[in-house]
Formats: sequence, C-alpha cells, structure tokens
Amino acid sequence: MQGIFITMEGPDGAGKTTQIELLKDYLNKKGYDVLITRDPGGNAVSEAIREVILNKDFTEMGYMTELLLYAAARAQLVKENIKPALSAGKAVIADRFVDSSAVYQGIGRGLGIDTVYKVNEFALQGILPDMTFLMDLDAEVGIARKKNQAELDRMEQESLDFHKKVVEGYRSLAEMNPDRIVKVDAALPKEAIHDIITSYVEKWLARP
Amino acid sequence: MQGIFITMEGPDGAGKTTQIELLKDYLNKKGYDVLITRDPGGNAVSEAIREVILNKDFTEMGYMTELLLYAAARAQLVKENIKPALSAGKAVIADRFVDSSAVYQGIGRGLGIDTVYKVNEFALQGILPDMTFLMDLDAEVGIARKKNQAELDRMEQESLDFHKKVVEGYRSLAEMNPDRIVKVDAALPKEAIHDIITSYVEKWLARP
Repeated sequence: MQGIFITMEGPDGAGKTTQIELLKDYLNKKGYDVLITRDPGGNAVSEAIREVILNKDFTEMGYMTELLLYAAARAQLVKENIKPALSAGKAVIADRFVDSSAVYQGIGRGLGIDTVYKVNEFALQGILPDMTFLMDLDAEVGIARKKNQAELDRMEQESLDFHKKVVEGYRSLAEMNPDRIVKVDAALPKEAIHDIITSYVEKWLARP
Repeated sequence: MQGIFITMEGPDGAGKTTQIELLKDYLNKKGYDVLITRDPGGNAVSEAIREVILNKDFTEMGYMTELLLYAAARAQLVKENIKPALSAGKAVIADRFVDSSAVYQGIGRGLGIDTVYKVNEFALQGILPDMTFLMDLDAEVGIARKKNQAELDRMEQESLDFHKKVVEGYRSLAEMNPDRIVKVDAALPKEAIHDIITSYVEKWLARP
C-alpha cells in the first residue's frame, strides 16, 4: 500500500476537526492505517514549540520569528511523524500544514508567499501534500464560532481585518493550485462536505 | 555616536563571558552604552525558544529543527534588542551569533554552511557583526573546563568528536573571513587576551 498525505486547511472555526475524524473513518474502512497530526504540534518537540508560538503573552513576537518557529515545528513533524508514516504506507491527515504559513504569515503578516515557501523548503524535506481540502468560510463566521471558546490563543486574538486577509489568502492559494487544493463551502452540512471530500479521495485512490 | 556590533565566538569553556565583561568596561570608558546579549536568548521570546533548544530530554530533535529554532531566536534578538540598540548608537556585545550556527549546525551537524547562512538571512535582516573574536581552544580543554558544571545542556552533552568538528569549523571560518574574524589563543592569560581584543577595537574606532 502506498502512503497518502492529505492536509486540511481553512480558518479557525471552519470545521476541520470534524471532517478529519470523518475522513479517518473512511480511510480506515479503505484499509488504511491513519495518522492524524496537527501543525504546529504532533510530537513533544513540536508541541513545545507550539506553546511558544501561541503563548498570548508574547505580543512582541516578530513576524519572522513566528514564521521560523512554525517552520521549525513543521520540520520536526515531517521528520518524526509524517515521513515515517508515509514510508510505512499509512494515510496521514494533517490539521494545517505549509499552506497555513503561506496564508497566515505570507499574506496575513505580509511577509510574502515566496518568503514563506523558501523558508519552509528547509523544513519540508521534499514532503508535500497529495491533496489539500480548504474549508472555506467567511472570517466573521469563523470568529463568531471560536468566540464561544474559553480562551483565544495569540493567533486567534488577531483582528478581524487579519482574519479577513487570511480567508482571502486561502481563496487565492486555491486558485493558484487547482490541481492540489479543493475549496469546499464550509457552510454546507457536515455530511455533504464529507461526501465532497471522499469523492476526491476516491478519485485519487483510483488513479492509474 | 555610531553603534558597534561585536560578537564573541568559540567553544564552551573558552572564556567568552570573562572577555565580554572586560570588553564592556573598556567600551563604557570609551563613552559607549553597552548592551550584552546571549544567543539564543536575550529577551522573553528568545529565552523560551532557548529552553526548547537546550532541553536535554529532546534527544530526538532533528538537525533542521535545531537550525530553524536558533534562527527564530536570533530573528527576535535582532528585532527586539540588537537593531534598536545599534540605532541608538550603543555598543552591542553578543555571546554567540550566526557564526555559532554556521559551525555547530553547518559543520558539526553537517547541514552545510551555505544552508545555515541561507536560513539565517531571513533572521538577520541585514545585521552582521562589525567584528568577531574567536576564542580558540582545543575541544578537549573546553570540555574539561565545562565538566565541572553541575549539569550539561543538550548541545554540551554532544560527543568529543562533535566538539572537535566545531573547533575545526571555527578555525576554517576565521580563515574564510580574515577581515571580520580575529582568532585569539584562549589559553593566554585573560589580560593578554583583553589587550589583543582592545587593540582591534581601538583600530576599528579610529578608522576614518
């Protein structure tokens, strides 16, 4: 069995976690061992880096520092979790990956998508998603869903303007990568979204 | 008054801290406000990153993760401390800087000096040392001095072979950068070393 690497992208509150769980069950039924990871995070080192990144006391953190920390966490996630899982023929579903940096740091922070991919080239070691699903949702709706949480982290605390740039950034990214990124309307019922996602996965699995 | 940026490099146990203190007094007498920083570290965010880097439980940390974490800590140090101090005309003395990554990650870890400088280009924002003093000491001597410490961190725990590569790496780096890096015999008495260092600083201050 050949490994398959699927990433789930989109703003906070778009329902990524729900779809990841549904997709996991689907892939299990297809005979896959499934590894779910989150980025930043997924192992002890990357979770320690995540704590630094999202610490809401660190309001003075520079955008370049932020970008490099995400890349560091991702480098460890690729080396320790994703690469070995794919080599063992597993399916990997990642809750966020390099596209999040492209959008949040490249567009939201204004560092530029080019800079983001250049820095991340060192982290990815040639590993790119086979397929990416973008849960597309207006920023206002995502934020409203998240505000019910007890406490927002450093990124979630950003302004509505920032989150609007993120959503627009995701949409441009999907247009720029039509072969890899599938944009899904996150306002649809979860079963409908799941059906859309599996129809693409089905096609990928059936490819010659 | 124009800012001046001096970095102190060399293996652990070479006496960098002593020389930094002596150099600070000297620069104070010359009328400089002096900022001493350490890398990684020097501010809350970079110190938090330092804790992750040097945590001796993280034996599984990948070399690329390590390189990116050092770069992240350095990006914050440049933005938050070094750049503002130089703009204010201060003297900055840094205990380690980008050359440490060139030697420890580039040569010791085998990632290559080229990769190290490419990644760090994003962190440095054009800031490079005016002068670098390399406290040159054989690896065996440095390690013996350090072993009297209560507890060694993740980098200090590395093999003698690693530390030998570091020392050799420093020597090559000094040869490659004769205009910036001054190699000083760290086995000399501390007063003699200080005299050598100040003779170079004196020359720099007197340049047209």
